Parts: sequence; C-alpha cells; structure tokens
Amino acid sequence: MRITPRGDRFFRLLTGAAENLVTATGLLRELVEAAPDAREPLALRLHEIEHRGDDATHSIMIELNSSFVTPFDREDIQALAGRIDDVLDHLDAAADLAVLYQLGEFPDGTLTMVQVLCQASELTAASMPGLSKVGELEPFWIEVNELENEADRIHRRILAGLFTPGADALEVLKAKEVVEEMERAADAFEHLADAVQTIAVKES
Amino acid sequence: MRITPRGDRFFRLLTGAAENLVTATGLLRELVEAAPDAREPLALRLHEIEHRGDDATHSIMIELNSSFVTPFDREDIQALAGRIDDVLDHLDAAADLAVLYQLGEFPDGTLTMVQVLCQASELTAASMPGLSKVGELEPFWIEVNELENEADRIHRRILAGLFTPGADALEVLKAKEVVEEMERAADAFEHLADAVQTIAVKES
Amino acid sequence: MRITPRGDRFFRLLTGAAENLVTATGLLRELVEAAPDAREPLALRLHEIEHRGDDATHSIMIELNSSFVTPFDREDIQALAGRIDDVLDHLDAAADLAVLYQLGEFPDGTLTMVQVLCQASELTAASMPGLSKVGELEPFWIEVNELENEADRIHRRILAGLFTPGADALEVLKAKEVVEEMERAADAFEHLADAVQTIAVKES
Repeated sequence: MRITPRGDRFFRLLTGAAENLVTATGLLRELVEAAPDAREPLALRLHEIEHRGDDATHSIMIELNSSFVTPFDREDIQALAGRIDDVLDHLDAAADLAVLYQLGEFPDGTLTMVQVLCQASELTAASMPGLSKVGELEPFWIEVNELENEADRIHRRILAGLFTPGADALEVLKAKEVVEEMERAADAFEHLADAVQTIAVKES
Repeated sequence: MRITPRGDRFFRLLTGAAENLVTATGLLRELVEAAPDAREPLALRLHEIEHRGDDATHSIMIELNSSFVTPFDREDIQALAGRIDDVLDHLDAAADLAVLYQLGEFPDGTLTMVQVLCQASELTAASMPGLSKVGELEPFWIEVNELENEADRIHRRILAGLFTPGADALEVLKAKEVVEEMERAADAFEHLADAVQTIAVKES
Repeated sequence: MRITPRGDRFFRLLTGAAENLVTATGLLRELVEAAPDAREPLALRLHEIEHRGDDATHSIMIELNSSFVTPFDREDIQALAGRIDDVLDHLDAAADLAVLYQLGEFPDGTLTMVQVLCQASELTAASMPGLSKVGELEPFWIEVNELENEADRIHRRILAGLFTPGADALEVLKAKEVVEEMERAADAFEHLADAVQTIAVKES
C-alpha cells in the first residue's frame, strides 16, 4: 500500500479541485440559459471559481514540494492538477467572451454542448476519490472520451448551422470563438482523463 | 534485450495502428481530388477507419494492462497510441467538415498539403517496426519535423490566397476550418514523432 | 551533486537557446512598431533566429544522445528544448503572417501584447542558469503564469475591439490570425515554464 495519511491530503485537494469543475460547468449552463443582460454576474462568479481553482492548484504544488512521500509520482499529480486548471480556464474564457463580445443569442446546439461539459465534470469529480484504487477508473476514461467525441460532433454541427448563406460574418466569428472555448473545455476534460489513465497504467 | 514475445505483440499492434494512418491519408487525398458530390462516401469510409483506430488503441490499452513485461515504459506506449489517434481525429475532422459545410472547391494548395500528410503517414508506418532498434529512428524524427514545417508553410500560403479582397467571408471561414484540420493533422504527426523520440532518448 | 562538467554544457546550450527568445521577441516588437512596408526585413531576421533555434535544439539532442550522465532526466531536457522551439515557432509565425497578409495597422493592444512576450522571454533567459538550483525557480513559474494570464486578457480585448459592427470581416480575420500567434507564443512560454517546474518537482 502506497497510500499514507499524507496521501489522503492529496486526494482531498484533488477532489476539491475537481468539485470546482462541477460548480463552473453549472454556472456556464445558467449563463447559456440566461437572458443576454443577465450574463455578466454569472461570468463574474465563474471567474471567481477559476481563481479558487488557481489557489487549489497552488496548494497542491506546495503540498508536493513539502511531502517526502506522495501517493503517485510527483509529476503525475502535478500534471493532473494542471489539467483541472486547463478545463477551468476554457470554461472561464467561454463565459468571458460571451459577455465581452456582447453576443446575441447563443447558436443552436450550445445548450447541448454545455450539458456534455456538465456530465464530464460530474464524472471527473466522482473519479477523484477512486484514484486510490485506479483499476476501477477505466470506465471513467472511456466515458470522458465518448463525451469529448460527442462535444466534437455538436461543435461541428453548431458551426455548420452558423455558416448559413447571408449570415453576418462578424456575428458568426463571435459565436464561433465562444463555442470553440467550450469545445476546448471538452478536449481539456479528455486530457485530464488521460492524466488519470497515466497514473492507472503505472499502477497496473 | 528487453524485447520479449509479448513485446512483439505491441509492435504488431502499433504497426497496425500506423498503417491505418496510410489508409486514412489516402482516402483524404481521394476526397480532395473528387467532385464535391462524390465526397460523402469517402468521408464515411475515412470515418470507419477512424473507428478502427479507436479499436486499435483500445486493444493496445488492454494489452498494456494485462502485460507484466512491456518493451518500453508503459506510459510511452500509451502516449504513442494516443498520438496516432490524434492524427486520425484531425484527418476525419477535415473530411467531415468539407462535407458538412458543403464546401465548394478546395482552396489552391490543398492537394499539396494532403500529399505532405500522405508522406508523413508512410514514414510513420515504416518507422514502427524499427521501434525495437530505436537508434535508427532519428532520420524519421527529422523528416517528420521537416514535413510539419512544410505543411505549416503551405497552410499560411493557402490562407493568404483565401484572404483576397472581395472574397466571401463566410466561404473563407469554411475553407479555413477545413484546411486548419489538415494543419493540425501535420502537427499531430510531429507530436507522434516526438513520442517516438522520447522512447529513443530513454533507450540511448 | 549531479552537476558535472558535462552538465555545464547543457546549461550553456539551454541558456543560449533561451537568449534567442529575447532576440526574437525584440524583433517582433520592432516589427509591430515599424511602418507596414518596413516589416519584411524584420520578419526575415526573425526567421533566421528561428533557424538558429532549430540548430540549438539539434545540438542539445546530439549532446543528449552522446552523454552518459545528464544533469536532469533526458526526457525533461528534451521537453524543455522542445518548448523553447515552440515559442520561437509562434513568434516567427506572427511576423510571417503580418507580412504575408499585408496587414494594415496592427489592432489596438498589439504592442502591449508583444511587451508581455518580451518580459516572458527575459524571465525565461534569466531562469536558465538557475536550473542547477531549481528550488529558486518557483517565482519564475508563477510570474510566467501571470504573464500568460495577462496575454490572454489582452488577446480577448483585442478581439472585442476588432469585432466592431461594420468592420471588414476579411481584415478582422487577418488581424485575428496574427494576434492569435502571439497568444500562442504566450501559451508556449507557460508550457516552457511547466517543463522547468517538472524538473523542479523531481529535484525537490
């Protein structure tokens, strides 16, 4: 058994960081469902969550630098914390851009896209406590990969819908940027699952 | 010698996955040369190849989880399989978007771009059996990097050609998205070669 | 002490590669401040610097393959050299695209963006000699991360400025591509700092 009391602290920190993702995707869903002029306060709250995520990552780094024993390789814990951060960055960017560009309606399909992100965040948060028994994590990895494929499929259909003849090219560009950040968040969830899988492969 | 009968199975699986790339780039070339209304069946065939790639990656993961001895570090084999998958994803996306957006003519330079991708896939497939004597792989890494530089150069010239005054901005956007997926496929080939190089550096 | 005379050579090579970044960001700043028709010679000089960077990476790879003892794990030195290369590629691309697209004025905020890149390159070059006492590098990592956040914020504001109603969509697209390469350079600086952090975490 490589799990030590010290290790418990890592699981708690990583679980907290992953739960942040659930809050962030929930806020993004609210923002997509809100009227355009009700978006800004939701984007600000999401930005605070992103800051909280930066603090969580920093705590994990400090813990890494001060622990003699870690439950997994240091660089894998560092990578995992970094990937959680990446997801938050893209969620925050999507919300910020929607406000900054004064986007009109979100294009068709956006809510479905955000629902996929919500599912990915819940799966991720649920997987963290299981890091101590990594053999059980393969279904998580497979499911997140399937969600990323779905996000990708939705993303392309949203774009095809935007590119209708006669559309205002500048409005298309704005909406495209916002939806792209959502797609990048889905990619970042996949990379996060890969970082979990790297740990699982080493432990197997 | 770290190569075991078990190791042979990894080389066979990785070689099969890399040969898939040759089939996929070949189909993309056919699609770029075909009339617009003949593209869809080719895109569907490319999509099947991408599915076959997912199965190959899955077999490699199962083999990794059930092998006591692996020819290289587990995480490096996992990374290599993942990079092959990334290339396939971008090739599939380029074909799918061309159909989905009902793209007219491909912009000038697209066929040259796809030919670079065909070359990269052939080099990659040819390098896989050589993984057991990694000292010989440096020319592969250098050549793939040169091809990526060439793809990058072609990509920029295609864009410059698209941005001619008076062009229809929506049509430019569509073509840009499709060609970008090709450029990402070239990048993904470079990352694949980096994963091979990581193994080579460890073995040296 | 793992630092050997051989190790000194790695520090010298990595320091040289990082100093290249200072030259490259300086040239990009000159280019952004120059009149449109004075850009081309500066882009060519930046391109030469990028070539010099390729040679430096190659020297590091040869040194890696011929050294029995290395100051850090081989793959971490390889990764660090690769990340320096990535930054150079994006700086070169930004300059090349500005010339190739015959961009008019750079959008508001571009000079601030380039100044952030200049700061990141100076911090990076200053950090290289400190690789032998990695405990001192955390402030570097934190500062580069903050600069990346700043670049991201500037990038989004530049885009919001570009998307003013009535703007010429093709001109917007061109400027967007150029500024995106600058943002990618800032990202690449962050990844470079992550590679330094990976070494620091292993040494701690």
